[in-house]
Amino acid sequence: MGNVHPLEVPGGRPRRVPRYREIARRFARAIEDGILATGERLPSMRQLREDEGVSISTVSRALAELEELGLVSARPKSGYYVRPRIRLPTPEPVRPRTVAGATAVSVSELVARVYRDAQDPRIVHLGYASPATSLLPTLALARTMSAVARRDPVASVAQEMPPGLLELRSAISRRALGWGCLLPAEDLVITSGATEAVYLSLLAVANRGDTVAIETPAHYGTLQAIESLGLKALEIPCDSDTGMDLDELERRLDQHPASAVVSVPNFSNPLGSCMPDSSKERLVRRLAARGVPLVEDDVYGDLAFAGARPRPAKAYDADGNVLYCGSFSKTLVPGYRVGFAAPGRFRDRFELLKFAMNESTPTITQRTLAQFLRGGGYDRHLRWLRARLETNVARISAAIGEGFPDGTRISRPRGGCFIWVELPGGVDALDLHARALDAGVSIAPGHIFSPSQAHRNCIRLNCGEPWSEQIEAAVRLVGRLASRLRPPGDTIPTRTRLT
Amino acid sequence: MGNVHPLEVPGGRPRRVPRYREIARRFARAIEDGILATGERLPSMRQLREDEGVSISTVSRALAELEELGLVSARPKSGYYVRPRIRLPTPEPVRPRTVAGATAVSVSELVARVYRDAQDPRIVHLGYASPATSLLPTLALARTMSAVARRDPVASVAQEMPPGLLELRSAISRRALGWGCLLPAEDLVITSGATEAVYLSLLAVANRGDTVAIETPAHYGTLQAIESLGLKALEIPCDSDTGMDLDELERRLDQHPASAVVSVPNFSNPLGSCMPDSSKERLVRRLAARGVPLVEDDVYGDLAFAGARPRPAKAYDADGNVLYCGSFSKTLVPGYRVGFAAPGRFRDRFELLKFAMNESTPTITQRTLAQFLRGGGYDRHLRWLRARLETNVARISAAIGEGFPDGTRISRPRGGCFIWVELPGGVDALDLHARALDAGVSIAPGHIFSPSQAHRNCIRLNCGEPWSEQIEAAVRLVGRLASRLRPPGDTIPTRTRLT
Repeated sequence: MGNVHPLEVPGGRPRRVPRYREIARRFARAIEDGILATGERLPSMRQLREDEGVSISTVSRALAELEELGLVSARPKSGYYVRPRIRLPTPEPVRPRTVAGATAVSVSELVARVYRDAQDPRIVHLGYASPATSLLPTLALARTMSAVARRDPVASVAQEMPPGLLELRSAISRRALGWGCLLPAEDLVITSGATEAVYLSLLAVANRGDTVAIETPAHYGTLQAIESLGLKALEIPCDSDTGMDLDELERRLDQHPASAVVSVPNFSNPLGSCMPDSSKERLVRRLAARGVPLVEDDVYGDLAFAGARPRPAKAYDADGNVLYCGSFSKTLVPGYRVGFAAPGRFRDRFELLKFAMNESTPTITQRTLAQFLRGGGYDRHLRWLRARLETNVARISAAIGEGFPDGTRISRPRGGCFIWVELPGGVDALDLHARALDAGVSIAPGHIFSPSQAHRNCIRLNCGEPWSEQIEAAVRLVGRLASRLRPPGDTIPTRTRLT
Repeated sequence: MGNVHPLEVPGGRPRRVPRYREIARRFARAIEDGILATGERLPSMRQLREDEGVSISTVSRALAELEELGLVSARPKSGYYVRPRIRLPTPEPVRPRTVAGATAVSVSELVARVYRDAQDPRIVHLGYASPATSLLPTLALARTMSAVARRDPVASVAQEMPPGLLELRSAISRRALGWGCLLPAEDLVITSGATEAVYLSLLAVANRGDTVAIETPAHYGTLQAIESLGLKALEIPCDSDTGMDLDELERRLDQHPASAVVSVPNFSNPLGSCMPDSSKERLVRRLAARGVPLVEDDVYGDLAFAGARPRPAKAYDADGNVLYCGSFSKTLVPGYRVGFAAPGRFRDRFELLKFAMNESTPTITQRTLAQFLRGGGYDRHLRWLRARLETNVARISAAIGEGFPDGTRISRPRGGCFIWVELPGGVDALDLHARALDAGVSIAPGHIFSPSQAHRNCIRLNCGEPWSEQIEAAVRLVGRLASRLRPPGDTIPTRTRLT
């Protein structure tokens, strides 16, 4: 099973990829595949212009992109040359061992410690999984909010009871049509972020002591919800390309009856996998047949690097058995805490539970988002953001390839904003986290992504910060530290020195 | 045990009551007590100016207030006369029967139905328990938010992780000093409203199946949280003046071990009672000795009509055994959903649970409130609002006195924005609710304030709408409908006709 390199156009209809990027992608692939060897000279700009039938400025942008990616370098008055080959980590699927039974979950304190330790503002944040605020349209959002608050001061101060602002639900409903989902506004409930949507979904379908099947590795937020609700987790192994192993899921569900399955089919956190549509359909149908609800967390679906936005599993839900959860926190504005759910046949219960928990989601943030979506600002922003994140993932992958110890494996996500790194066995990620933090860099240790701590030699690196020398240096630092933490039997010499 | 009339200055240090209001109160009391009889002429304005040693304008404001309250009327060129005596309902304490054991709770669907039915915008809302938006500083809040969003667009978009914005926590901490509470900012956690704070408090101290002692009648929001968390409720009877019966609480806790006690010591919802400081101290000490945490809901504490803001029970908490919950939703801005908790020794667990539930409370609303509090706008608003609510409570009490059937009893709250009405036995409040709604008026039926539906002949009436002929007519309509619903054995004739 092949992992797809981030510069490759993945299956599905490629669309809206600018010409210069198409050219850059083709050459990047050629360099990776060895078709263009290290030191080789690229065709001249004039030649490229003729070959590709484009303007000189398009050629020039394509070459600039290849240069930014560290694949070629310009020599004055000579042209562009392929740089020494980056040793990319083997893109083998990550298939960690998992414990067979359902386990009690207790990661909350570890998560809190990991993130509390990283609160120093001087720290370089590779531990998060969100685009940095500098990649978000902060000024446009501030202007929109200001206009909305002043235009109708009374409405902004009044409470907007569940299911939430109709105008926002209608806008989400229209967007969902484009993902192949028919989600009428009346099926949607606005929540305070997708975390709350997942929490309420679990509360709606499971009782304390019940078992819930999850991906492994899984987003620690899901694990915290499971822990806080007194549920048990059944870990299902995943492929870093295609996501949850459905055969294994069915086998385990046969042995361990579960009240729900939680999955992030699109660009799962932290693995970055994207489940093929056929698997999504199979997952939805099999769970409906079993009567086991699927809680789908789709917060990264809007961050596909190329091609169409992937469909949610919800698109195949004929029985109302899927509780779909989304948000604007990972793509537009984390601080508004606006998410939404389409809880299917659990809608009424979900809405009651939402009201009991905190009555409603604030009004002004809902109104501002509805206005922003109406103006088309979200789609413009997404196009720009996806390109930035794709480039960041490629650059951080390259930096890992150059600076991490042999035996390192990485995910090759086609969307989202993070990379999952499997370090050579014996490297303890929590140890690495502590040392990196001492040196001013935060990472997310694998321990927080599994109740059985099945991923102790893995880390998740954020690709949501604007690329800078500081970020590159931080990635290389983590690589040097990882090399130093190799087990004693490993004899490859390291020349790293901490600064 | 006497209930205190809303126009009376309650025990404690009266402060900042304007002279004109002091005069108006004294005369109101004199009229109520029969010292000034119906038809009697009040002293002339000149006489009053001399007696009271105040200006003519102060005298004139005092008389205007008495006139507004419907206690006196002006006769041109003659003076002010005491109006025909309003038959005030007997202010006897309401002491409903309660079931002895702990009961499962299932009011959520009923609550949802009651409020869903009342969503027609043409309806007169006597069913809520909040000041109307027209009594809130909506324009000042909109301006503050606009300025805050534009001044720092990045900060407003970024996530503000628990425990929440330091500036807001510090402002709350300073306010708490004035209530006799030492609550350092680091002891506080910002929540999405007090409902969420109470929910998280219960989650922090109780497990599914546990019993929680509550007031009866109790805020239906608390009942919904209890239901949604799978807890059982132990109802403790209350006095409409002094709140929870502490002897009874101790007796019942001896028989039914509980994981927590939930109380609204200040202007409890829906009874409007205010627990004396000595009882608060006793409650806190006895529960600490038992090791049973107290969840204190203090959302109405800032709405005392006169005198100092009553102390929270938290002021007597020496052991961190009190989980204090407050908000700005009932006093300033319901739509922001900003509340806070001082969870005592449960603080760390509370913060973890908050993060697991929805990560954080939105940033912009916290920043706007912090700015608004810094500007002094909140205190100015509160002074104004309290006076309006006091007047509303007096007017609605008077309207009930004139229009409700004999045998009706009402609470005499000294703060908050609602009145609890006990109708003659046999009148079913849910039936009354349905008929009132048909006629365009929403009320809160007693059924939603008790898991054992112990208050079937009671209703809660909102006093948070600006006084108007429409409100007065709505109260009278409910009274006429209640008269018609008297049981058949009751022979007092009614002349009401539905319009």
